[in-house]
Amino acid sequence: MNISHIEHIGIAVNSLEEAIPFYEEKLGLKCYSVEEVTDQKVKTAFFMVGQTKIELLESTDPEGPIGKFIEKKGQGIHHLAFAVDDVNQSLAELEEKEVRLIDKSARKGAEGLNIGFLHPKSTMGVLTEICGKE
Amino acid sequence: MNISHIEHIGIAVNSLEEAIPFYEEKLGLKCYSVEEVTDQKVKTAFFMVGQTKIELLESTDPEGPIGKFIEKKGQGIHHLAFAVDDVNQSLAELEEKEVRLIDKSARKGAEGLNIGFLHPKSTMGVLTEICGKE
Repeated sequence: MNISHIEHIGIAVNSLEEAIPFYEEKLGLKCYSVEEVTDQKVKTAFFMVGQTKIELLESTDPEGPIGKFIEKKGQGIHHLAFAVDDVNQSLAELEEKEVRLIDKSARKGAEGLNIGFLHPKSTMGVLTEICGKE
Repeated sequence: MNISHIEHIGIAVNSLEEAIPFYEEKLGLKCYSVEEVTDQKVKTAFFMVGQTKIELLESTDPEGPIGKFIEKKGQGIHHLAFAVDDVNQSLAELEEKEVRLIDKSARKGAEGLNIGFLHPKSTMGVLTEICGKE
């Protein structure tokens, strides 16, 4: 597995309407895309910061993953995503190394990328994603 | 304020001895430095991932900031640090824009950088740092 950079950082927020102006007006970053991912029950807003995207996540359903996260932990950083060449091959390698996985094979995430999640039990509490075009 | 990239992501862990082998052997990243920051009551381990560092933080004192964080929330992502040109100037700009700050002026952090923290009450729950050489 070859990690080239941090692809994105997912941040759970109560409201994009409140969060986007903070990132734009206070930090001076620019939101380049807002996208609803119905499968994940979220609305997302993306900002490019050097090589890495910030992905703000607003829940559209209290029973969805972000809704449950916010209920339990409050707003904050939700996950960290590493860019890899080949998601399926990387997941297979991780499984061989006895890393516990949420996704045993790649599925489609925001922006059409292949994604796969590792289980926080294997990653010292950090919900870790790998993603890539392949 | 001009944010160029994400300088580092701070991750609170129970033990560097357990966490470093995960990042090295499972994810294939390379730890290039281990440093104790007595002021912050932590031992840190750094990995370069593209433009961004991962900074693992092990508490050396249960009463320190990472000790308290882990006691309250468990292991996981602790803070997000943006690279800026001039930390003092950026803190002044943020204060003018009514962002609540932890540090009103820059202090020295790991690797000799100037750093300053914004208050999570102003940043939708994300403990946010700005850092830079100036």
